[in-house]
Amino acid sequence: MDLERVQRTLAQEGLDGWLLYSFGPSNPLALEVLGLRGHLTRRFAYFIPKEGRPTLLCHAIEESLFPPLEGERRTYARWEEFVQGLQDLLEGSHRVALEYVAGGQIPYLSRVDGGSLDLLRGMGLEVVSSWPLLLLFQVWDEATLALHKEAARGLERATDRALALLREGGVSEKEVQEALVEALAQEGLVFDHPPMVAFGENAANPHHTPGTRRLRRGDVVLLDLWAKRPEGVYADITWMAGWDPPKEAVAAFRAVREARDRAVAFLRDRYAQGLLPRGFEVDRLVRTWLEERGYGDQIRHRTGHNLGREVHGAGPHLDDLESHDFRPLVPGLAFTVEPGLYPGPFGVRTEINVYLQPEGPEVTTRAQEELELL
Amino acid sequence: MDLERVQRTLAQEGLDGWLLYSFGPSNPLALEVLGLRGHLTRRFAYFIPKEGRPTLLCHAIEESLFPPLEGERRTYARWEEFVQGLQDLLEGSHRVALEYVAGGQIPYLSRVDGGSLDLLRGMGLEVVSSWPLLLLFQVWDEATLALHKEAARGLERATDRALALLREGGVSEKEVQEALVEALAQEGLVFDHPPMVAFGENAANPHHTPGTRRLRRGDVVLLDLWAKRPEGVYADITWMAGWDPPKEAVAAFRAVREARDRAVAFLRDRYAQGLLPRGFEVDRLVRTWLEERGYGDQIRHRTGHNLGREVHGAGPHLDDLESHDFRPLVPGLAFTVEPGLYPGPFGVRTEINVYLQPEGPEVTTRAQEELELL
Repeated sequence: MDLERVQRTLAQEGLDGWLLYSFGPSNPLALEVLGLRGHLTRRFAYFIPKEGRPTLLCHAIEESLFPPLEGERRTYARWEEFVQGLQDLLEGSHRVALEYVAGGQIPYLSRVDGGSLDLLRGMGLEVVSSWPLLLLFQVWDEATLALHKEAARGLERATDRALALLREGGVSEKEVQEALVEALAQEGLVFDHPPMVAFGENAANPHHTPGTRRLRRGDVVLLDLWAKRPEGVYADITWMAGWDPPKEAVAAFRAVREARDRAVAFLRDRYAQGLLPRGFEVDRLVRTWLEERGYGDQIRHRTGHNLGREVHGAGPHLDDLESHDFRPLVPGLAFTVEPGLYPGPFGVRTEINVYLQPEGPEVTTRAQEELELL
Repeated sequence: MDLERVQRTLAQEGLDGWLLYSFGPSNPLALEVLGLRGHLTRRFAYFIPKEGRPTLLCHAIEESLFPPLEGERRTYARWEEFVQGLQDLLEGSHRVALEYVAGGQIPYLSRVDGGSLDLLRGMGLEVVSSWPLLLLFQVWDEATLALHKEAARGLERATDRALALLREGGVSEKEVQEALVEALAQEGLVFDHPPMVAFGENAANPHHTPGTRRLRRGDVVLLDLWAKRPEGVYADITWMAGWDPPKEAVAAFRAVREARDRAVAFLRDRYAQGLLPRGFEVDRLVRTWLEERGYGDQIRHRTGHNLGREVHGAGPHLDDLESHDFRPLVPGLAFTVEPGLYPGPFGVRTEINVYLQPEGPEVTTRAQEELELL
């Protein structure tokens, strides 16, 4: 952890410290910041004051599960000692960052339970969201970006193999999914859940589970796949094809493609002006543009999500739909741009990945221009 | 879900309803109550009013991931609709149960994030802990108890195999662990983490990771293993041996054995009197007894934990150490009784499982009387 940078951010934000607080793995953000992988089952707290050394407070029985962490280490056995230990850590602090968001509006960031929040407020603390500090851990360096690009190339090659299989004809969703899984394994990539393959009307369900349905004339085909190098971060792409697809699907695909490119242009434009766009702004822009073309009632999800060690990272999303993501899109962040339309008889989506270089957005994946005709 | 029973409990507790609220899998209690297994990533709420039918409010994109649930089903797409939908669900309710515990004092039960708690309070609700409702889902029926006993027999047979291997001599912790893993697999049992095997001073660390250390004269041996039938609930036992163990270890083992039996006697006595003991009372009794014999500074964990589909279940624990578990030990619950002492050069623990029959405690596992001599 770059303690100096964290403490500089604490000073900038007018905070007395950052309390990373979790019951076992209940706060995944705290675990990621501290690099914890062990099998934790008790409460712990790691307090970073605006000046001086951090302190870990963990249960005596679990001390051996914590890696070396910067600063002091204290243990508790009894619950009264935990509460007293917290109070000692926070002595003299008034305004403290926590994995908390007012109203839970960005649920990814609101991870400390309500009872513990009451406890901290009862100690006289003003609790604010830790998102500006978390951002420091959500940006990628060059090495991480390189691993992401390796994953992206693997996804693209797997997609091409699936397209070849589709062109042979007569396949089911499940068979295409199995071919993708095999291709990703051969690429040395791992993933949390297998790829999505949806034909025809199934493409209208953004979370469809591939089944035995076979490809028919008039179908669109939607492939959505995400994976990473075991030590890396995710790439996540969608690619679409069609066998004599309906004209409406071709037109809808062109609309999402245009919306996607407008999102990237917006980011480029803001960076060129020296401004930091915010997650919700990109989503709003894309949705407004699609709404104005009469597609408003066919939108079912946000424009994009952050990418990290999890495919749905905890960094800023392009979202004013499911949540109001007010966070700035700072250099070093990566995310998907994936507008989709789901009228019912079919669905369309295009999905690219974007990494923010200091000078502006870099699109790290292939960008599809038209439905692939089978 | 036995809706009638839930609503009867709501009436008894003077509650207007129970709000099961989660962001994806963040509230594991809500997932277990609703029988949800899918890959959820958005916020949902399921409200059970004191009268009438429950309502599910979930994101449109995830609707297909929810199994049929009793009552009505509503979806939201935009975050404003989620907040409005919540408000509609809770209209007319004032006092509502939630996975919340004041001060987070039983962290297993405090699962809704602080930001969402603020949101609910901002709607004028009084939020109270849902533990009395959760208890209805934490008790076992006869079929579940039978599966637990199957697991217990498997653990005992695996223990016997490990003891036979230890008697052959020259083995390392890791080798004994591997033998246990193999034995459990042959029994058709599954587990979250492999068994614990600790020799000598390593037994003083209740969360030791088995390594290459070999058995030496003067060592105690601590085996702790837990497993379940894939469709069942856990059993969790500790068994101890020694190769010419120190006299102090033999004496300490007798002390924890006596403490264990006193805990069971206390439960039996309370049930005979028609009283419901509480989790913290059993822990306090065991600790007081050990403290009075001069072992107070060697105690490092609570007396026992609830058993369920997870080895550390979310039901009442025998705990006034790590948390103050005020919940009543009602018939149908099961838990471990596992006092341990960890002076440093060695550690001792004995662990049995107890199921509460309507007439009193039933010990479902073998109870060790003396260290097994190797």
